[in-house]
Amino acid sequence: MTTIDLNCDLGEGFGAWSMGEDDRLLEVVTSANVACGFHAGDPQIMLATCRRAAELGVAIGAHVAYPDLRGFGRRPVPTTPDELFADVVYQLGALRAAATAAGTRVGYVKPHGALYNVAVRDAAQADAVAGAVAAVDPNLAVLALPGSELLRAASDHDLLPVAETYADRAFQPDGTLVPRAQPGSVLHDVDEIAERVVRIATEGRVTAIDGSEIELEARSVCVHGDTPGAVMIAAQVRHALAAAGVELKPFA
Amino acid sequence: MTTIDLNCDLGEGFGAWSMGEDDRLLEVVTSANVACGFHAGDPQIMLATCRRAAELGVAIGAHVAYPDLRGFGRRPVPTTPDELFADVVYQLGALRAAATAAGTRVGYVKPHGALYNVAVRDAAQADAVAGAVAAVDPNLAVLALPGSELLRAASDHDLLPVAETYADRAFQPDGTLVPRAQPGSVLHDVDEIAERVVRIATEGRVTAIDGSEIELEARSVCVHGDTPGAVMIAAQVRHALAAAGVELKPFA
Amino acid sequence: MTTIDLNCDLGEGFGAWSMGEDDRLLEVVTSANVACGFHAGDPQIMLATCRRAAELGVAIGAHVAYPDLRGFGRRPVPTTPDELFADVVYQLGALRAAATAAGTRVGYVKPHGALYNVAVRDAAQADAVAGAVAAVDPNLAVLALPGSELLRAASDHDLLPVAETYADRAFQPDGTLVPRAQPGSVLHDVDEIAERVVRIATEGRVTAIDGSEIELEARSVCVHGDTPGAVMIAAQVRHALAAAGVELKPFA
Amino acid sequence: MTTIDLNCDLGEGFGAWSMGEDDRLLEVVTSANVACGFHAGDPQIMLATCRRAAELGVAIGAHVAYPDLRGFGRRPVPTTPDELFADVVYQLGALRAAATAAGTRVGYVKPHGALYNVAVRDAAQADAVAGAVAAVDPNLAVLALPGSELLRAASDHDLLPVAETYADRAFQPDGTLVPRAQPGSVLHDVDEIAERVVRIATEGRVTAIDGSEIELEARSVCVHGDTPGAVMIAAQVRHALAAAGVELKPFA
Repeated sequence: MTTIDLNCDLGEGFGAWSMGEDDRLLEVVTSANVACGFHAGDPQIMLATCRRAAELGVAIGAHVAYPDLRGFGRRPVPTTPDELFADVVYQLGALRAAATAAGTRVGYVKPHGALYNVAVRDAAQADAVAGAVAAVDPNLAVLALPGSELLRAASDHDLLPVAETYADRAFQPDGTLVPRAQPGSVLHDVDEIAERVVRIATEGRVTAIDGSEIELEARSVCVHGDTPGAVMIAAQVRHALAAAGVELKPFA
Repeated sequence: MTTIDLNCDLGEGFGAWSMGEDDRLLEVVTSANVACGFHAGDPQIMLATCRRAAELGVAIGAHVAYPDLRGFGRRPVPTTPDELFADVVYQLGALRAAATAAGTRVGYVKPHGALYNVAVRDAAQADAVAGAVAAVDPNLAVLALPGSELLRAASDHDLLPVAETYADRAFQPDGTLVPRAQPGSVLHDVDEIAERVVRIATEGRVTAIDGSEIELEARSVCVHGDTPGAVMIAAQVRHALAAAGVELKPFA
Repeated sequence: MTTIDLNCDLGEGFGAWSMGEDDRLLEVVTSANVACGFHAGDPQIMLATCRRAAELGVAIGAHVAYPDLRGFGRRPVPTTPDELFADVVYQLGALRAAATAAGTRVGYVKPHGALYNVAVRDAAQADAVAGAVAAVDPNLAVLALPGSELLRAASDHDLLPVAETYADRAFQPDGTLVPRAQPGSVLHDVDEIAERVVRIATEGRVTAIDGSEIELEARSVCVHGDTPGAVMIAAQVRHALAAAGVELKPFA
Repeated sequence: MTTIDLNCDLGEGFGAWSMGEDDRLLEVVTSANVACGFHAGDPQIMLATCRRAAELGVAIGAHVAYPDLRGFGRRPVPTTPDELFADVVYQLGALRAAATAAGTRVGYVKPHGALYNVAVRDAAQADAVAGAVAAVDPNLAVLALPGSELLRAASDHDLLPVAETYADRAFQPDGTLVPRAQPGSVLHDVDEIAERVVRIATEGRVTAIDGSEIELEARSVCVHGDTPGAVMIAAQVRHALAAAGVELKPFA
């Protein structure tokens, strides 16, 4: 039976501020990328998110970021590899403890925002992330874009590299994402999104923005939590996958 | 052979700021209370401190604190037991990962500053700390004052309670510390301090401020790192203990 | 003609996080208590809030707080009068510059959350706040509860003390607020709230929780911005005041 | 009579951490670049620094920075012009209030660290800084390197541009600083440093690293506060200037 994982950014509130509909999204996805306090999340939110994920059997990933609460981790704060190594160790460790206290465990690491983007192409930053993960727990998986430096670094550090893709993004003929600035880069039609994810899961193929058919290997699909209609889209994706006989299961 | 542990607060810089003579103190003490980023310490400092401690065979404790960088953890920030539980989980987890990445492990927890003082008498705060420690790693020790709520809470949570005392503080006849505001509360004579620690280690007794002899059970003695002459005092204590045939050894 | 002021806490987002419906509330109230970065608010949000307030003729107050972003200023962080003096100077100065850059000015100071509550009864904290305000701009007003230490301190520092009351809170026969923990402390009926504000504005009287009639002097009425239906309640209060021939006007 | 200004970074502690010998440096320099809380400095330190500067007749400048306490403002945090404008307004406003409360005033703005370097060449960042300063107080001066985008932007915004140079840095034949990475970039000989500053003040000339003579217009000379021997170097520079009949006076 074909299986796929749905991952989503969660626990992105801070103190009195909330973001996204965590409670409902946790009932839809199979993997939760949990903020670790550097771009969002605080110790109580991290613990509560781990506890709820544990109840629902949702896998937990450390959503590590550059230290930038005000910029929500979207600014590539210049960080040396040594700083980044230490920052990832810190965040991953904090979430591991929260997961342990919640009776579960961290299964993977996925960088957030600017760090995610930088680690696609920057070998030194990618190696710092993977090196930190390996130094803390060599059994963890690393979730990133296919062809990224980060997946390469994960392999080099004997971690499990897991390729993911995005449910609502258009692809170029070479398999990379159409940049957000270009028209048509983000899909909004719920049915189209759901159908596309089903094809990725069952055929490993997707139609690129120019109409060509391309291969797309992905063990996990990221659904967004902070866009309008996020829950509805995620739920529809889940429903369509189930209808197509695809099993939803954490990869980690 | 009689053994005792010398512990000291370490890793209390932040970013470009330093505090204390960590390099020299690490060569004298047997246990390092390492700041976890809430009152001091940042991920790089934590990692560097763990690495150096590992090289020297110094045991590592999580020096957890209320979240108050500007106040250096000296202000009792009103914190609910649930908040405190989550904050201790976070800090302990972050340091555990740093220790793991440095090839060593965290052996104990000792609260810092205002949290240390509050946990002497406040049962709910003490239980929050001990509960968090037990939830993350039931094999850890908790270092605190004899007779404190925190040692009681450590026992209640099946953690190893370890009593410590202070090298340079005067005692009241009931065995508690003479409050800092009172004259004679802090000892400054290096020889007197060293001699007193030797008696605590070898006889389990100390002379109180009124001249009476009291019993004092302590498996660890705290030396300060941020006072003038801190290194010299610590070194002299170490020397005197060795001369008296007392083995210096981490308790954890 | 009778006049009254409606004030509301605004600009309480931080970075990517928002709170309350600032845009709509700014069209209803006459005075905006603008967060200054210690409990909420960041430099961009402060500037945007001042600009919009300037466009709408809404007066600006500095909503100063204890330094506690994660606790949203609701925790009474132990702060010495000297620390508090400096913290108020800092926050007030930052907002004054934002107001100047927006082509307007700060007209008053109102403490937020825990600091608001502490300054009701704690003379030293109240004097620290008033002293800081007077040291920065002696022409400012201070907005607080009638009978509070803060209004007393404002007078002592030759600032303009302005009494405010709450639109949705019940009163005890002595004129103080019914504590939130007690039943009936918060009013939820929109018409009742509006009618009560009209009586305060036109008669200076209100019915206490035991049915007795009490006098209540207030030049400003605080409406909440972060409760469900906040905008509707505020709009209804404004409508009822206009219908009763009361002019809505900033006090500052 | 020839006059010159000596400026120095001051108030760069944070909470319990100190940096540099502020008390002694304030007795030597004529202008203090005071940290505003984004890279260093907290409200109490800012106030204390302003008070001491006021007593000594030292001019006060806002040492504005990117928001990066842990990186001490040395990392060029990616910041949009709108963010930077708001951040400069905030910091400048906070320091202006501290200066007012201390009975003095802010006379100029000088960016710190990474922002100083970026504003040499980046027109948009330089305009954001100058625009923010002009929006808060059009009477302020801006202190920066000759030929920098920031001095150009200061002129464009009708602010007073003031060129500064560095006491202990070597120059290239084109008048720019020799990059720190190159040998000979930093001077260490106290007498050589003092003599060089005297020539800049009296002749407007300096010997470049290749031995050529170049013109160098500077109304202020920056002495470092955080290098070993900083106070001695600054004092020697001051002494040499006095001996050469140059008056030391704030430019602002």
